[in-house]
Amino acid sequence: MSRTDRATDEAAVEAANTAFYEAMETGDFESLSALWLDDGATPITCVHPGWPVLTGRGEVLRSYALIMANTEYIQFFLTDLRISLAGDTALVTCTENILSGGPAEDGAELGPLVGQLVVATNVFRRTPAGWRIWSHHASPVLGDTEETGGPEDGPEASNPPA
Amino acid sequence: MSRTDRATDEAAVEAANTAFYEAMETGDFESLSALWLDDGATPITCVHPGWPVLTGRGEVLRSYALIMANTEYIQFFLTDLRISLAGDTALVTCTENILSGGPAEDGAELGPLVGQLVVATNVFRRTPAGWRIWSHHASPVLGDTEETGGPEDGPEASNPPA
Repeated sequence: MSRTDRATDEAAVEAANTAFYEAMETGDFESLSALWLDDGATPITCVHPGWPVLTGRGEVLRSYALIMANTEYIQFFLTDLRISLAGDTALVTCTENILSGGPAEDGAELGPLVGQLVVATNVFRRTPAGWRIWSHHASPVLGDTEETGGPEDGPEASNPPA
Repeated sequence: MSRTDRATDEAAVEAANTAFYEAMETGDFESLSALWLDDGATPITCVHPGWPVLTGRGEVLRSYALIMANTEYIQFFLTDLRISLAGDTALVTCTENILSGGPAEDGAELGPLVGQLVVATNVFRRTPAGWRIWSHHASPVLGDTEETGGPEDGPEASNPPA
């Protein structure tokens, strides 16, 4: 792959990744659905923070419909975006700095806003129609770690040292 | 891809995935290192449960060295294993039912055992030497959800409804 081709691919992947979060921000279910790979032989998978794995367009898109129905406001500030390309697959990692609010319960326009720190691994496949999401895995960052610090209480610990 | 080729690929990917967890269980750092992609143009990425993203062999392998140094005992019971193949990339999702223990502090052989429910998305690339890990993203399952239930308190909520 030439340097130019790689730069072009990276720009297209970043645009697809941005479109994914913008569809969430605007609650645009149609755009969001179109961004996910049309699976069949290659099922799509999705993990929302703290959730089990969802597999296939039915399960995954249903989860987004429910999420959108329960969200009045959401904004993603993406940082630490990195793209790793290999052939027709692209791996994107980023930090999702999220500000969101659910529906208010007392007649106010918006419920309380909540800030969250989440990291995501998004896998994209190249298709004739552009890059499409094959997998999204997002998880909460549960505490500060040193740059490559290890947990004190086990290898796959949920609580890295604060 | 013929059905036979696909079955052969899936078997090889599953074997690589099993080898990854076995290397963790036996604390075999050399085997673990060999299973990760030799990155360069395509950096490897890793998210341990609750951690931020680690990128590149230096950061990723250092984290495993630290984890192994702090782990006296660990066993993974893998369930819900699914493989999605596209070209030279394979996506594996599984539930890691983990039982682990750190070093004891009072002269006993083993610290208290801790059980954890973690889900993982593991991305593999086909290389001349076999399938190698490109990305590992593991995250804690923080509560029970209905099969495709949505969180009550926000779209990327860390706490799905119990």
